Amino acid sequence: MSEPTSNGRLRVVIARVSPEIDCGRFAAKRVIDEKVIVEADVFTDGHDQVACRLVYWQDGNQPQVSPMKPLGSDRWRGEFCVVKLGRYTYTVEGWVDHFQTWRRDLEKRISAKQDISVDLLIGAGLIEAAATRAKGKDGEMLRDWARRLRENKQLESQTAIALDTDLLGLVQLYPERELVTRYDKQLPVVADREKAGFSTWYEVFPRSCSPEQNRHGTFRDCEQWLPYIASMGFDVLYLPPIHPIGRTFRKGKNNTLPAGPGDVGSPWAIGSAEGGHKSIHPELGTLEDFRRFLAKAADHGLEVALDIALQCSPDHPYVREHPEWFSTRPDGSIQYAENPPKKYQDIFPLNFASAQWRALWEELKSVFLFWIEQGVRIFRVDNPHTKAFPFWEWVITEIKNQHPDVLFLAEAFTRPNVMYRLAKLGFSQSYTYFTWRNAKQELTQYFTELAQTDVREYLRPNLWPNTPDILPEFLQVGGRPAFMVRLILAATLGGNYGIYGPSFELCENAPLHPGGEEYLNSEKYELKHRDLGSKATLKSFIATVNRIRKENPALQSNRNLRFHETDNPALICYTRATDDLSSVIVVVVNLDCCHVQSGWINLDLGSIGLDTRHTFQAHDLLSEGRFLWQGSRNYVELVPESLPAHVLLLRSWVRTEKDFDYYL
Amino acid sequence: MSEPTSNGRLRVVIARVSPEIDCGRFAAKRVIDEKVIVEADVFTDGHDQVACRLVYWQDGNQPQVSPMKPLGSDRWRGEFCVVKLGRYTYTVEGWVDHFQTWRRDLEKRISAKQDISVDLLIGAGLIEAAATRAKGKDGEMLRDWARRLRENKQLESQTAIALDTDLLGLVQLYPERELVTRYDKQLPVVADREKAGFSTWYEVFPRSCSPEQNRHGTFRDCEQWLPYIASMGFDVLYLPPIHPIGRTFRKGKNNTLPAGPGDVGSPWAIGSAEGGHKSIHPELGTLEDFRRFLAKAADHGLEVALDIALQCSPDHPYVREHPEWFSTRPDGSIQYAENPPKKYQDIFPLNFASAQWRALWEELKSVFLFWIEQGVRIFRVDNPHTKAFPFWEWVITEIKNQHPDVLFLAEAFTRPNVMYRLAKLGFSQSYTYFTWRNAKQELTQYFTELAQTDVREYLRPNLWPNTPDILPEFLQVGGRPAFMVRLILAATLGGNYGIYGPSFELCENAPLHPGGEEYLNSEKYELKHRDLGSKATLKSFIATVNRIRKENPALQSNRNLRFHETDNPALICYTRATDDLSSVIVVVVNLDCCHVQSGWINLDLGSIGLDTRHTFQAHDLLSEGRFLWQGSRNYVELVPESLPAHVLLLRSWVRTEKDFDYYL
Repeated sequence: MSEPTSNGRLRVVIARVSPEIDCGRFAAKRVIDEKVIVEADVFTDGHDQVACRLVYWQDGNQPQVSPMKPLGSDRWRGEFCVVKLGRYTYTVEGWVDHFQTWRRDLEKRISAKQDISVDLLIGAGLIEAAATRAKGKDGEMLRDWARRLRENKQLESQTAIALDTDLLGLVQLYPERELVTRYDKQLPVVADREKAGFSTWYEVFPRSCSPEQNRHGTFRDCEQWLPYIASMGFDVLYLPPIHPIGRTFRKGKNNTLPAGPGDVGSPWAIGSAEGGHKSIHPELGTLEDFRRFLAKAADHGLEVALDIALQCSPDHPYVREHPEWFSTRPDGSIQYAENPPKKYQDIFPLNFASAQWRALWEELKSVFLFWIEQGVRIFRVDNPHTKAFPFWEWVITEIKNQHPDVLFLAEAFTRPNVMYRLAKLGFSQSYTYFTWRNAKQELTQYFTELAQTDVREYLRPNLWPNTPDILPEFLQVGGRPAFMVRLILAATLGGNYGIYGPSFELCENAPLHPGGEEYLNSEKYELKHRDLGSKATLKSFIATVNRIRKENPALQSNRNLRFHETDNPALICYTRATDDLSSVIVVVVNLDCCHVQSGWINLDLGSIGLDTRHTFQAHDLLSEGRFLWQGSRNYVELVPESLPAHVLLLRSWVRTEKDFDYYL
Repeated sequence: MSEPTSNGRLRVVIARVSPEIDCGRFAAKRVIDEKVIVEADVFTDGHDQVACRLVYWQDGNQPQVSPMKPLGSDRWRGEFCVVKLGRYTYTVEGWVDHFQTWRRDLEKRISAKQDISVDLLIGAGLIEAAATRAKGKDGEMLRDWARRLRENKQLESQTAIALDTDLLGLVQLYPERELVTRYDKQLPVVADREKAGFSTWYEVFPRSCSPEQNRHGTFRDCEQWLPYIASMGFDVLYLPPIHPIGRTFRKGKNNTLPAGPGDVGSPWAIGSAEGGHKSIHPELGTLEDFRRFLAKAADHGLEVALDIALQCSPDHPYVREHPEWFSTRPDGSIQYAENPPKKYQDIFPLNFASAQWRALWEELKSVFLFWIEQGVRIFRVDNPHTKAFPFWEWVITEIKNQHPDVLFLAEAFTRPNVMYRLAKLGFSQSYTYFTWRNAKQELTQYFTELAQTDVREYLRPNLWPNTPDILPEFLQVGGRPAFMVRLILAATLGGNYGIYGPSFELCENAPLHPGGEEYLNSEKYELKHRDLGSKATLKSFIATVNRIRKENPALQSNRNLRFHETDNPALICYTRATDDLSSVIVVVVNLDCCHVQSGWINLDLGSIGLDTRHTFQAHDLLSEGRFLWQGSRNYVELVPESLPAHVLLLRSWVRTEKDFDYYL
């Protein structure tokens, strides 16, 4: 027989707190100055009123409290703002609010003209009890309130004292500590810098930046491209691996074997006699050149993101120095990467669960720290889903503890469970299935999942219409309008997006094989030399879109995405908005790259804070056209060859005669 | 800087286990011999195969394991059966299955005609490693398999050995323990006896069982009613409180004050000079009479359920002996129950959070134990939502630890959060909103929530069309057909239901006030004398319905309730089925008590395991009519005055000429 539980007097239940990821196992994500809106079910037995509050603290600091307000049906909401980088923790406290219960009942008794003399004594007792828990001046004030309530003999003044809202607020500050229920979990949230939620990426191979055909480009060459890239409005410049490239089993042009003598190899086959993950490919320049490049990029508002691919070519120094970090076969050879029957003899995977895993993990952490020391603060991690999950959780936590401004982008194209897990483990941003979602129904479904379910708490999508590995069928067949459509979608469906350029803006769309997604003459295996001034370039269109993103806060996060009906399956319509609805953008895209499409869109105006009775202005930020709209239904026609989308800024306030003085 | 986590080699993730109630804080519920079907997301990084298994144990016993099978998309399922009363615990284990991965890859290599000589050595090594972990004969067998694989030089036999499924099964029994991930929670399940899931309740006031008008009925009188109640097919006989009734502020007929000298008072005003919660109202008989009554009831297949109302009349011995268990007012009086401005001076609520709560809780536990000692095993708890939640969790756990066959029914009509919380805390069954759900849409929505969401794991509905407190409007206005409709719904929408009789079968439907739900001349405040042989009685209809419940396993649980379309809003159609679909019942009810209603029902035949190409028989168990149906759409017409419902047993097998020998 066990004794009654020690906290038997705690009558309040706190449940279903949100955000709460996997029972509090993982942190929610926010950017600096963003709100954490916390909701919880808080209730008790019987008819007593409850009160509750949010308790939160930045790790290592003192807790702060913030009141929670009832939403009805036992649901409560409070909020706090993350104002510094790093980890915060929050939880909820609730208690039976005897004073408020008493006050509610007193009002009913007064209405029913009942004798309240004993009730006033009860109230005075509750105030005095709060006074004993209060400190200094508050205690004195409470004692004074209680005395006035006891001494006053006139019903009207008694009532006025009893129901005073200042008194209520003061009493509520001092609940009986030992009867306060605290939620049984402390929930974490990570505050990242703003770029985690709003960033515009451009991927470029520095080796293709040479002004001369067939000469290997360098960081110095790439510096010359910075004004061009910056002029399009990008703010993250992402470089594929910059390390020495292996020679053993090096791949030739179009992924063929063996490589010819002039073949440059894949930057993802990392490591040679010249060094490994902490070295720079000599043909790109020196470590000093790289640091100079970072500085020059910064001068153009571009932050460099480095690709970290934790795998080795057979020539990597680790292979010789640490064979215990790899798997070996019974014949003594090191196990290369395989997807049977395919063999990737140029890649040795690291064995994250080897007996020597601790030393391996420490070494890999030191790779990140090395580049952080050079000034890098963003890492695009290659194929994180083929490395052990516990490693990512450990290494990201470790690095962010020291450098909370560092961001990690997970390049995982795999099953949803795995992608979501990586995001939970700490990746700041994630690649998504956007690359293959083209139809209205599939875009709506997928982005509803990303933006309106719990996923939004921990996964920040980074949307890529193309990558060096993926030339999607839609781009292969849809010509220039397809590139425009995919760019608009990527740039407006979320806060983070990127393109692999200049391939993208030049609308390169020839596949290696029909039905495949590999580029013909892929830049992964050869140097490219392109005409950035080509007439076909989308650079000014991209510049316009990125300027619109920068000018409109509604487009600068992953929040408040909402889809609206259209009567044409080729037209997709959605809105983006700030939390306070001060900035609302309507996007309408013609998903059909080959035909003019028209139809009616049906905006859910209530959801975006617009009054259906007023006319509002829809200002197309792409075409600079301005339309007067009224009500939820509006007609749209989009011509793919010219401009396959509207990006409309809604202005709810249109002046009418009623606004003038003479009308009033 | 922290060291890499100690379990860095555990590559497998186990997540989203179901059932899991509030992160494992509460137990799922099952009845004896019922399956617990456990699902989980189990996956790892990269392309390796995983394996997993369910681990479960009855508390205090050794763990057992059961294999889990993949459902696709990283989801796995396993099951175990609860075979003894009490608490079980389960969790999930998963690991990278290197042998299965190797075997899968080997098959691909063989198909691609690659050289597999090194791979066979790898496989032999994996088998030998398993052998070192195996015990006795299994170890020898594994070593033998490995030797044969190494020594055999002929490709075909090597392949046959390598891919042998016996070998696979044997290796999988011995994963590397230290690399097995165990789910981070151990999840509880409570196994109750069968009646928790399938019970048919009849509520009766023994004091109204006297054969003479105006004489207070006794347990002896009530014995005479047992054959009548049993003949209708009930198996739980629920008695309102049987304790001495208070005299101070006793309520008169129709809830009036003051009571007249002959007024019997409300059985829920518990306690007088004659005793409290462990005493018997002298006018009902003695404790011996009560024990005899239990035995007689059992002879008729009726188990007695006792009403426990943890509140006191002002005359209760606790008031004198333990004033510290109540709240006192500043004038020294004890606080009576209130819902301001209403006052219930005849009821003193216990203060579950008083300073002396431990002693109070122990005393209240002893009340349950006292009646358990007399032979009671079912308690209907009055208004549990006005008593502290921690008390219920503690007292139910304590009692079920000693007496796992005891069942508790929560009579809480309050907000959903509170009702669900009580069920989670341990109540075996719960009253529901069924009493007020009449329309097709509201029945469908509510029962979908109860039967198809997580709620079904912890809340077992007990459906009541009426109670002594509630005469719903539907019964007031709908006459006899309304009583039939509500009975059919209650009896077929879940495994547990009950009626307050003989009020129900006699179709008593006069309210105290129009628009109210109180009975006129409520049995709560006076003795009743009824003619059980009235022509209007529904007793034989009720007997038929209860016989159908007893004969058809589909109706004996809360599982597998599914709604089907009808084209008439007055017709509701649903099916109930056993897990294996061996018993399938279709219910169609005309919800309109005043008019004939007809229409088409559209059965989702796939969901109930029927082949749309065959004719099947629909046997109406109420009318004994038999219909041949084919396909999903079938016509129905229901006349409220005669029989407002079909309860159809589907028989999928109808003989055709193809079943005869000469056709084959």
